[in-house]
Amino acid sequence: MPHLYVEYSNNLTGLNEQGLLEKLNAVVCGHATVADEADVKARIAALQQFRIGTNPAQRGFVHVQLRLLAGRTPEVKKELSDAIAAVLRAEVPQPAGVMVQLSAEIADMDKASYYKDRL
Amino acid sequence: MPHLYVEYSNNLTGLNEQGLLEKLNAVVCGHATVADEADVKARIAALQQFRIGTNPAQRGFVHVQLRLLAGRTPEVKKELSDAIAAVLRAEVPQPAGVMVQLSAEIADMDKASYYKDRL
Amino acid sequence: MPHLYVEYSNNLTGLNEQGLLEKLNAVVCGHATVADEADVKARIAALQQFRIGTNPAQRGFVHVQLRLLAGRTPEVKKELSDAIAAVLRAEVPQPAGVMVQLSAEIADMDKASYYKDRL
Repeated sequence: MPHLYVEYSNNLTGLNEQGLLEKLNAVVCGHATVADEADVKARIAALQQFRIGTNPAQRGFVHVQLRLLAGRTPEVKKELSDAIAAVLRAEVPQPAGVMVQLSAEIADMDKASYYKDRL
Repeated sequence: MPHLYVEYSNNLTGLNEQGLLEKLNAVVCGHATVADEADVKARIAALQQFRIGTNPAQRGFVHVQLRLLAGRTPEVKKELSDAIAAVLRAEVPQPAGVMVQLSAEIADMDKASYYKDRL
Repeated sequence: MPHLYVEYSNNLTGLNEQGLLEKLNAVVCGHATVADEADVKARIAALQQFRIGTNPAQRGFVHVQLRLLAGRTPEVKKELSDAIAAVLRAEVPQPAGVMVQLSAEIADMDKASYYKDRL
């Protein structure tokens, strides 16, 4: 059931979209809390219109949001965040002169009302 | 105030975007908890870059997130999720050879700080 | 760390995307709760496929979601929402004959598992 959302500012030229999703999925699917690798659904989008702060020149960012069914412990969430962080630090390019921010959020989804099915 | 977000992998060719929104809005607007049909704001986007698990060939998905002001009971959330699920099962195409995952999340929005207005 | 997401229906022709982000970032970065202006990461997207309610003709909307680390008081969230609302009312165009809805949500992000870094 995990949903992984990746966004990045489109000034990070050279970012390998499928390569980044592959490595992120590998660490999320490999975590003990994820029973079936096929459950992890990831998407990535380059942001065409963004603005960072009030002095935005030469700034970029990559942000990951991982949405999981509620019930994971704080320790599990931290492990997943750490694993995502390690992938971002290894994979995100830093164009010359650009200050790049990396971030990751782990969010809970309501379990009682969550629906999933397969065709 | 409900916000409905629909995403789908772009390998689900034949999915009728406006048709799906029309049917989803019908069930959400028709629920007793929604006072004014005009409050339901839905959007849909085809995902150009996605990856499902670690063995992603021939996989697709449709995911719906419905964001509501906090305060709905678990029963109401489950009813809304069930109604969305029924629409997805009826409307989402299954291309030959593709394993399609359907999912729906009901999320709370903070009520005290929510802003809405009409021009 | 704040993440600001702006979406608008693409029938609101004349909306100035960077102008709106500039004014929204100004009020968010200027709030006492935001330590470093560079932390505010905003993006905006025009929705190509949307549907408002069951009688959708001549309707449009702009929605802002501001995601902050958990821990802000209800008063701070309301102040931020009010400031965003004032920008929307001043900046969003109203095409003739279109009923435009404005809305803003303030959402918490889990603090213990949040990751941020700069390259």
